[in-house]
Amino acid sequence: MAQQHLEPTDPAAGVVTGDALAVYLRAQATEFLRALRLHRETGTSAGTEEPVDAARALRRSARRISGSLHTFRPLLDADWSEEMRPELAWLSGTLGMEHAYEARLERLLLALHRLSGSSPFPAQSVTSGAGPAAPGSGPPAQERGNLTVGAAKAGALLERQLTLARTRAHSTALQALGSSRFHAVADKVAVLASEVPLTPAAVTTDLRPAAAAAEERLMDAIAALPLVTAGHPYNAEALVHGLSPDPTPHPQDGPWHQVRLLLRLHRYAREVLCGGGLGAPPAELRLLAAGRALDRHRDAAEAAGAAAQAARTPRIAPATAYALGVLHADQRHEVEAARFEFQQSWQKQPVSAP
Amino acid sequence: MAQQHLEPTDPAAGVVTGDALAVYLRAQATEFLRALRLHRETGTSAGTEEPVDAARALRRSARRISGSLHTFRPLLDADWSEEMRPELAWLSGTLGMEHAYEARLERLLLALHRLSGSSPFPAQSVTSGAGPAAPGSGPPAQERGNLTVGAAKAGALLERQLTLARTRAHSTALQALGSSRFHAVADKVAVLASEVPLTPAAVTTDLRPAAAAAEERLMDAIAALPLVTAGHPYNAEALVHGLSPDPTPHPQDGPWHQVRLLLRLHRYAREVLCGGGLGAPPAELRLLAAGRALDRHRDAAEAAGAAAQAARTPRIAPATAYALGVLHADQRHEVEAARFEFQQSWQKQPVSAP
Repeated sequence: MAQQHLEPTDPAAGVVTGDALAVYLRAQATEFLRALRLHRETGTSAGTEEPVDAARALRRSARRISGSLHTFRPLLDADWSEEMRPELAWLSGTLGMEHAYEARLERLLLALHRLSGSSPFPAQSVTSGAGPAAPGSGPPAQERGNLTVGAAKAGALLERQLTLARTRAHSTALQALGSSRFHAVADKVAVLASEVPLTPAAVTTDLRPAAAAAEERLMDAIAALPLVTAGHPYNAEALVHGLSPDPTPHPQDGPWHQVRLLLRLHRYAREVLCGGGLGAPPAELRLLAAGRALDRHRDAAEAAGAAAQAARTPRIAPATAYALGVLHADQRHEVEAARFEFQQSWQKQPVSAP
Repeated sequence: MAQQHLEPTDPAAGVVTGDALAVYLRAQATEFLRALRLHRETGTSAGTEEPVDAARALRRSARRISGSLHTFRPLLDADWSEEMRPELAWLSGTLGMEHAYEARLERLLLALHRLSGSSPFPAQSVTSGAGPAAPGSGPPAQERGNLTVGAAKAGALLERQLTLARTRAHSTALQALGSSRFHAVADKVAVLASEVPLTPAAVTTDLRPAAAAAEERLMDAIAALPLVTAGHPYNAEALVHGLSPDPTPHPQDGPWHQVRLLLRLHRYAREVLCGGGLGAPPAELRLLAAGRALDRHRDAAEAAGAAAQAARTPRIAPATAYALGVLHADQRHEVEAARFEFQQSWQKQPVSAP
């Protein structure tokens, strides 16, 4: 087991072998089964937070199992591993969509309120010169009354489109959870909870080279990011192509999304090496902050895409389209802000050259 | 005369009296007359840069005369001063409009090209993965072909509206220059070039208290700016109210515009005290950088307003409105970037508390 305050890939830290991987995978599999049980018990009681939490916990352990299978591939039975990973990816992808659409809609509606100078929650008056609002004079009865016609219509359009997408995602997730494909995965995870298919050599194999390789892939990907530009505030890079005729996602976002995934794999590998018993040493906090910045990057990029897509709805009013244009640019700016945030959090500690 | 490397309002600097003000005003009046002569000689030859330069020089000296009349009011004949200032303001305002509309259109068209991932000047390919463009394959014959339909239509709409405004401003400026009102101002400036109407006491009055008061007004106004917020990149303040139902200019911009004017008055007062013979000590460079940031703030704010106003044109296509929305938000981000730039340039040297 690695010592608490040494970097887990440090040669001075104790050797960690396949045993630690087995412990980690069993724990994650147990967590998966616990979340699944919780989901089955609460899944029918709509309106509570529990099914959401259960689905999140399911995805959380599915990602960790899948990530560990990838990073420590040579230590595990190859056939089993290759069969398991795509199934776990399918599962966490399918279960994540409903929440993603919900969060996207919330992000966009909050932004619309901010851009309208109103707030979904009653707030102080911001008009300079005007005195504080008299008690009781508060916001209009209908919150949407605070928005311009364009912002209100844009909000209604996004609500319609993203609620529809969310409802579909919900049905798809329910179908998935009832499918034989899902039962096969769940059965495999149940076996994993007691029996990890390690290779014969794994028990004496050092995990650190594989973990170091995962870290190196992350460092290479980060080194290829335009971090100098990102570190200059207001570089206006994220909105380049904001009006490009190409309707596909911004190609410039790809490398950042890739770093987000590699950062996750690196974090999971550290969890394996540290036996999941990490406190919060500075390196961990830095990884968490960097990860949060990249989550924000992804969320803003997808919200910007949803605004742009809504603007392509036929027969919308010009005022609606205008509001969606402002909203799109606002979210692309959030993308740029997230890159700046990542650059700032990442440079807080010297990065070892790959 | 103040010593070269002492701050002009420093008590250790030599006393500067009304004489220096007279020297400065005579020099500016002479400059005004020179620019007027140049403008008359070149004004009819359309298509050259000279009338633009001449108009700029006219405005430049009109602003300096007007500003000095304001700052050093007690040293000058009150009736003459009160009559002169509004006339100079009218003149520099009228002469500045044509250039302002031209610059605004250029700024907006450049932004549209940037947002479309194209460039008004042939540039390297930015699509990742694609190899460098083969020579001769360059941009399409029609530059506008690089823009989406929405961006192209938005550009054409802005071009139509701002060119019309510019043409009207041109006629207004020509009319102004031929008016008896203008001839009256020009005559007064001609008198000023030889005879400055100082009060009897002015010759022995120290200019520094009046200059210090101008500086204090500037410092007070800067102290009231939200500089802590402005110093946090991506604070998203400038786009609040971006979709507000209020079609008037952003009230949050007002204090910044006011600082821009006060900074100018402070700079002119320093010119008077230093006899116009300033090199570029650090304080001067800082004032220039801060002034440039505030010019950018003003230009971006007005460009954002023009995009919002164009979006209110009846019967425009949704794609046009969408592009104008993106453009509006982009320019409001420029506003925010300019505030950050001002904050950065201003904090480079400790600011004496007012």
